[in-house]
Amino acid sequence: MKSKQLESSDSPRFAQPATFMRLPHETDLSSVDVAIIGAPFDSGTSYRPGARLGPREIRSQSSLIRPYSYFQKVSPFEALRVVDAGDVDVPPVGIDKAYEAIQAGVARALDKGAIPMIVGGDHSISLPCLRAAAAKHGPLSLVQFDAHIDTWGDYFGGPYYHGSPFRRAIEEGLLKEGGYVQAGIRGPMYGEEEDFAFQNAHAVTMIDIAQAKHDGVQRTVERIRERVAGPVYITFDIDSVDPAYAPGTGTPEVGGFTSFEAQELLRGLAGLDVVACDIVEVAPQFDGPGQITALLAANLMFELLCVIARRRA
Amino acid sequence: MKSKQLESSDSPRFAQPATFMRLPHETDLSSVDVAIIGAPFDSGTSYRPGARLGPREIRSQSSLIRPYSYFQKVSPFEALRVVDAGDVDVPPVGIDKAYEAIQAGVARALDKGAIPMIVGGDHSISLPCLRAAAAKHGPLSLVQFDAHIDTWGDYFGGPYYHGSPFRRAIEEGLLKEGGYVQAGIRGPMYGEEEDFAFQNAHAVTMIDIAQAKHDGVQRTVERIRERVAGPVYITFDIDSVDPAYAPGTGTPEVGGFTSFEAQELLRGLAGLDVVACDIVEVAPQFDGPGQITALLAANLMFELLCVIARRRA
Amino acid sequence: MKSKQLESSDSPRFAQPATFMRLPHETDLSSVDVAIIGAPFDSGTSYRPGARLGPREIRSQSSLIRPYSYFQKVSPFEALRVVDAGDVDVPPVGIDKAYEAIQAGVARALDKGAIPMIVGGDHSISLPCLRAAAAKHGPLSLVQFDAHIDTWGDYFGGPYYHGSPFRRAIEEGLLKEGGYVQAGIRGPMYGEEEDFAFQNAHAVTMIDIAQAKHDGVQRTVERIRERVAGPVYITFDIDSVDPAYAPGTGTPEVGGFTSFEAQELLRGLAGLDVVACDIVEVAPQFDGPGQITALLAANLMFELLCVIARRRA
Amino acid sequence: MKSKQLESSDSPRFAQPATFMRLPHETDLSSVDVAIIGAPFDSGTSYRPGARLGPREIRSQSSLIRPYSYFQKVSPFEALRVVDAGDVDVPPVGIDKAYEAIQAGVARALDKGAIPMIVGGDHSISLPCLRAAAAKHGPLSLVQFDAHIDTWGDYFGGPYYHGSPFRRAIEEGLLKEGGYVQAGIRGPMYGEEEDFAFQNAHAVTMIDIAQAKHDGVQRTVERIRERVAGPVYITFDIDSVDPAYAPGTGTPEVGGFTSFEAQELLRGLAGLDVVACDIVEVAPQFDGPGQITALLAANLMFELLCVIARRRA
Amino acid sequence: MKSKQLESSDSPRFAQPATFMRLPHETDLSSVDVAIIGAPFDSGTSYRPGARLGPREIRSQSSLIRPYSYFQKVSPFEALRVVDAGDVDVPPVGIDKAYEAIQAGVARALDKGAIPMIVGGDHSISLPCLRAAAAKHGPLSLVQFDAHIDTWGDYFGGPYYHGSPFRRAIEEGLLKEGGYVQAGIRGPMYGEEEDFAFQNAHAVTMIDIAQAKHDGVQRTVERIRERVAGPVYITFDIDSVDPAYAPGTGTPEVGGFTSFEAQELLRGLAGLDVVACDIVEVAPQFDGPGQITALLAANLMFELLCVIARRRA
Amino acid sequence: MKSKQLESSDSPRFAQPATFMRLPHETDLSSVDVAIIGAPFDSGTSYRPGARLGPREIRSQSSLIRPYSYFQKVSPFEALRVVDAGDVDVPPVGIDKAYEAIQAGVARALDKGAIPMIVGGDHSISLPCLRAAAAKHGPLSLVQFDAHIDTWGDYFGGPYYHGSPFRRAIEEGLLKEGGYVQAGIRGPMYGEEEDFAFQNAHAVTMIDIAQAKHDGVQRTVERIRERVAGPVYITFDIDSVDPAYAPGTGTPEVGGFTSFEAQELLRGLAGLDVVACDIVEVAPQFDGPGQITALLAANLMFELLCVIARRRA
Repeated sequence: MKSKQLESSDSPRFAQPATFMRLPHETDLSSVDVAIIGAPFDSGTSYRPGARLGPREIRSQSSLIRPYSYFQKVSPFEALRVVDAGDVDVPPVGIDKAYEAIQAGVARALDKGAIPMIVGGDHSISLPCLRAAAAKHGPLSLVQFDAHIDTWGDYFGGPYYHGSPFRRAIEEGLLKEGGYVQAGIRGPMYGEEEDFAFQNAHAVTMIDIAQAKHDGVQRTVERIRERVAGPVYITFDIDSVDPAYAPGTGTPEVGGFTSFEAQELLRGLAGLDVVACDIVEVAPQFDGPGQITALLAANLMFELLCVIARRRA
Repeated sequence: MKSKQLESSDSPRFAQPATFMRLPHETDLSSVDVAIIGAPFDSGTSYRPGARLGPREIRSQSSLIRPYSYFQKVSPFEALRVVDAGDVDVPPVGIDKAYEAIQAGVARALDKGAIPMIVGGDHSISLPCLRAAAAKHGPLSLVQFDAHIDTWGDYFGGPYYHGSPFRRAIEEGLLKEGGYVQAGIRGPMYGEEEDFAFQNAHAVTMIDIAQAKHDGVQRTVERIRERVAGPVYITFDIDSVDPAYAPGTGTPEVGGFTSFEAQELLRGLAGLDVVACDIVEVAPQFDGPGQITALLAANLMFELLCVIARRRA
Repeated sequence: MKSKQLESSDSPRFAQPATFMRLPHETDLSSVDVAIIGAPFDSGTSYRPGARLGPREIRSQSSLIRPYSYFQKVSPFEALRVVDAGDVDVPPVGIDKAYEAIQAGVARALDKGAIPMIVGGDHSISLPCLRAAAAKHGPLSLVQFDAHIDTWGDYFGGPYYHGSPFRRAIEEGLLKEGGYVQAGIRGPMYGEEEDFAFQNAHAVTMIDIAQAKHDGVQRTVERIRERVAGPVYITFDIDSVDPAYAPGTGTPEVGGFTSFEAQELLRGLAGLDVVACDIVEVAPQFDGPGQITALLAANLMFELLCVIARRRA
Repeated sequence: MKSKQLESSDSPRFAQPATFMRLPHETDLSSVDVAIIGAPFDSGTSYRPGARLGPREIRSQSSLIRPYSYFQKVSPFEALRVVDAGDVDVPPVGIDKAYEAIQAGVARALDKGAIPMIVGGDHSISLPCLRAAAAKHGPLSLVQFDAHIDTWGDYFGGPYYHGSPFRRAIEEGLLKEGGYVQAGIRGPMYGEEEDFAFQNAHAVTMIDIAQAKHDGVQRTVERIRERVAGPVYITFDIDSVDPAYAPGTGTPEVGGFTSFEAQELLRGLAGLDVVACDIVEVAPQFDGPGQITALLAANLMFELLCVIARRRA
Repeated sequence: MKSKQLESSDSPRFAQPATFMRLPHETDLSSVDVAIIGAPFDSGTSYRPGARLGPREIRSQSSLIRPYSYFQKVSPFEALRVVDAGDVDVPPVGIDKAYEAIQAGVARALDKGAIPMIVGGDHSISLPCLRAAAAKHGPLSLVQFDAHIDTWGDYFGGPYYHGSPFRRAIEEGLLKEGGYVQAGIRGPMYGEEEDFAFQNAHAVTMIDIAQAKHDGVQRTVERIRERVAGPVYITFDIDSVDPAYAPGTGTPEVGGFTSFEAQELLRGLAGLDVVACDIVEVAPQFDGPGQITALLAANLMFELLCVIARRRA
Repeated sequence: MKSKQLESSDSPRFAQPATFMRLPHETDLSSVDVAIIGAPFDSGTSYRPGARLGPREIRSQSSLIRPYSYFQKVSPFEALRVVDAGDVDVPPVGIDKAYEAIQAGVARALDKGAIPMIVGGDHSISLPCLRAAAAKHGPLSLVQFDAHIDTWGDYFGGPYYHGSPFRRAIEEGLLKEGGYVQAGIRGPMYGEEEDFAFQNAHAVTMIDIAQAKHDGVQRTVERIRERVAGPVYITFDIDSVDPAYAPGTGTPEVGGFTSFEAQELLRGLAGLDVVACDIVEVAPQFDGPGQITALLAANLMFELLCVIARRRA
């Protein structure tokens, strides 16, 4: 076993300081394959804040993650050395310093050869992550699971907030032309022009939720894979999932994916060359005492680890 | 833009006193196309009360409603002048005065030529709304989304409560013979005779949840549309949706519609001549901190606005 | 009517001390057909405790159960004499005395000719129930709805906890070879060997969640029925249902059954010779104020009563 | 022991259908000393409903009540035969029939010689209780613990709601002139005239919260006892206690009694001739998962039982 | 009556869009005496965010505020014209633009001669409010109720966050030397030097919680009044109150004031020349369903209105 | 600084895996002065379980603990090397193995010369802690803050549960005759004989809550100190505090200490020779989203650290 996960036969699942998936908290990332990094920042939020508390709750709920995927037929902690790299110490006031800190933290993992899996935080954190990843790997394919396009423009005169990261990424040349796919988009919008002109001008492929639901998971996966090539960044906004399954988020949109669909969508991406990924917008205060949103996030992170492990295999 | 919705680029979504969909609170209904009217009354409830607090929470959660429907391809606030007409000041003790107040409040909107969209409150409020609407438009077709038939008889010797509004409506001649369809019915019942004799005698079409689930949304929509003609009243009991998606309600029934199915069902009604509609039984105390039930209600109200806007177009 | 259920026309659903389905609390089980017995024990729990409080909350939420199943076309309280037999007074500290008490309580019902429907408690309670049932009926077929296999071995050196009841049942010869089917299995696991070697050696049929979802309810039911014959024990772990529908449980696993699927699965078992059954792992503290998990449990108990009533008919 | 309370050494506190203080549910009130009667009615509520669910939750939380008061030096269940007399089946829609049902239910206990302890429900239920008690005992002294005076006049044209019971009681001659004391009054009010003219005209003694806090419990008790003589009715509105200690109520007022002060105030009434009493306005949905309000209510009921037991001794 | 508060005899307290104390939402501040202004901003928060949602919840809970103070013997809505001036539309990302917007919004009220009562938001909002008030009135006396000193220095290299507003105010010359009093200070701290050197150098009077508790409210009020003269700004951080009474806040400190003490402290300030005031740090997500923190805030705002009204009288 | 606490100026309080007071997680206890050790065990609970989740939540909430006590005038992390020693891996099923594991874990710290501060868990854990401490230090003085005496006898035939630890400690000779004081005792009890005969026979000093409230903190402290001498064990059951301040516990008793009283009581113990201590019965599921109980526990642990630091100084 490459990763030293605490086992429930030695230590009950509720015991010991909580780390991601009961992995060692390790800040030396030498010879690490995947570094799970918290980015507890939500000052890019335009509606309900709280995603800064996401990493802490996901650590708690991820105590239930066992080591083997029967569905992907892989044991990621055997195949990979995975650690809880701790959180980036993101300054909470303002966004510019936060972006610097996050980019530096992610770059630190990439420099050591580790694949960073970043745990937000609101969706604004994806931009500094993409900057770090593109600095290493060049323009990236991007798969975005989301209820919202997040390619909108300025907000109250500022370029950065959780509605604009991917517009900025395109403008900064971080993404591969034609390699950007969004899935799960829905909810009341602003208008065809306001929402889609920029996307259309930059060859963004949008799979709206109705299309995804009517086509089914398998066809949706195929449509994603048709677009994506080379190094890929996967960003999973938990609000792509329906609020019934993920109430703990700041900007919920009804009519989304089920948790099973979300799992199957990620399983369908096995084989892609994932160079970095994130999961964002878990805001525990909006969940009930069962904290099913953080639990879902932990499980989706596990699926992503399996996707990475299968590529390595 | 006919409706002056507060825009999030000018005013953050969490700012300002909450009105339905951030529309102006307007009590002068001249030249209004759709008047959203709260009917905060729950003293017709036989089980868990709380729906009187529905309008307030739905106002809060509806801050997320943006102006354009990509799925219905319409901008209802451009097509229609929609306002938050405030609440009817419904006396909470007893039901007779409440019925008078609600009927008067709805009639006031109809008199001005506005389509009333009433936000309950428990399902007993539909009867005074139907009375007002039928007084203006004559006998109505009725589409009811609900877990329960709500055509039961007296309750503890009184004619009115949230289980009887549609029996009374039939008895009072408010509904068009053969034009009454129910969808989503389920849960343990009383008996074939107790539940369905009256319905069968009055040509009520019931689409139970199993039929709806097995046939799918499209066929269910067709079956509804086959029955409905002329002026239509739509009543949406939030408990038609499964408690996973709508826990904040007084009489939840497991095994219901998903939020996506609910949205698609309403979208399927585009083109109908909706003369009034209501959404009822949101009881926020039974929801968690995410308040996903009120959010769902707000989104379904948005779908109904789009249905109305498309008819106008 | 054989069972004296309190009717809502006489007594509002929220009134009177809560018993299962508003049935009489009756400890004399002579001439009882089905005895609903609480087993409020959770000291076999390896993760989050709380299922000892399940029977109390299920009693509360079961106030909504009406007497007729439109979907199974049966009135179980007419067909059967059903009572709330109270709870076994299970000692909460340690597990050995608890097992003795539960087995004795279940045997007491069986001795009187009543079918016991046991309401847990955590899943460890199934073992003493099976012991009592097999003592009367011989080796049993077993249908298990669950996210977890629960055929694991020792835990911290002890043979009994909520992960091992069915391994023990097999070892003790309580189950009929080849008559044991599991449905809904999912979640991260330990490994092919760790999870399935024992099961394969003992001809356990596992229908994982992906298979069940892809095949659909009808085919899943057929696969279950192909295996099962003779006296059957049904055990329903509420975590077989997705946490969106059943957040109130100790070891939730994302990606599970919907509540409608759960209902249909049980309806599909009509005609089986159910000699005992249980529903377990409802932990109300992890649910929100709507308590939809306990409500679901109450409804699934109602489906099981209908299955039993149809067999009798 | 006159009362057969379930003991925790025989039956764990969380086991068995919940009754008040684990006492037998007994509808035959012959030879009963104190009958605890639920009055689950909240349709007299002008603000947040939910008190109809009070008796059920108080039954649950009262599982912690043990049999001996070290502070009052009495064992009420030895001194008195106390039972859970169940709930009055109060019709929830409208208030007139509810009043009839409650009065009849309370009279039934009084007729048998039992002292009724009524568990609301909202404060409107005190009027039918007073009617029944005064019918038996003649005009009564009244001790009211409350944040609000509840001697206001009509509400939306009707005489009855939870703000008027004691005005009606005075008007109906149910109270002894000069024998009515209120303690704990506070909160923003309507005006000297609006609030106090009626009270002053009828010799009501009001001890506002500031007076009570500054004088202390002992002097407050003395002031109450100076006024009260003969048969006494005690009404305890849980909102007399501060929302920190009793958040689960419909009309909370900040700045109230602590739980310890509430206990000491009741202990100070030992020796009075309590002929009936009630505790009202526990609305569990507004409490957190610990349900400390219902627990407090159960403990105050225990203090009242001890007061009654000491009189008997 | 100068202020048109909705009365509960005309409109139930739960009806109509919620405004502060059911006052008219009015943006024209001519001839207004007190303008209640929301400042929904929490991006100055160093720990748990959520205070941006404070104004919305305080509006809801303030529905219970009636028009007369029996304890201060004044009817503020008769004495003063008070309105809900709406919220400042504070940009949520970053803090500099937010400060400009808040200062401008407060200045707008002051320019019209209205006393601004600002409802936060986190404590960082006090600085722009003080800037606006000092611009009009010159250096101010300051009374701060708080668990924390909030005179700390930079945070992650930036000058502004909710721990530094009063250090900045002193540095900017907004406060009158010797006229700054803090009450309620407690909790683990950083060190004598780190916490108090700056305060001592600037003649800040700190009344720690132990002193306040041991001396009592009356002596504490005297000590405050000894220091304060001329135009006064009152800032009330809800975390000065104990978490039992005010759990809904971002940085709770145990061992604080009771709600009654808080009320009495404010009542003791009657007669001061309050030129502006704020109440901050109500974060509703951290409260339970009863929302007692927002209710307390509304009541403390009412006490402050009475203080202002008595000065006017 | 002897202890390397994460500082909020370097790392926001919500960042990084949570440890007790942001101290290093350190399992090598050489040269450690105080080892904070989690004992996440609640299978000794007779009522509502959940205290096994206490250490995890206390770690989270203790992020707010800063390094200096202004009230005790000491910086414990400068005076002492304090670490988060992690949790004992306590087997959750049964109690005998749990006792062995806890005793061994505590002894490990004592062997290294560290003072163990144990974080429960339910109160049954105090017995193995006392065994370990007495093995090293001989018979101990014991100060117990508690609502319950916890010197009861067997429970369902077993000697160990959370109601008996101190009877067992006396029987096993772990306590110094006459050196055992309890404070805060209250609630309905079993009887003078049942509760106090054993205590009286063993010279246990009980300070009931009424005595403590009437005498005040200072006199209560004096009475405790009069009894205690030599090596002292302090056990703090969080239910000694009133449920308003500590709702998150399994067996709450109304009428308890305030948080301020609890702090002052502990501060009054400065100078005692504390050789070990524990804080128990925090059950987070019964608290609201603010988690004020775990926060209070963390603050009381801080007071205890200061007590220890002052002894060392």
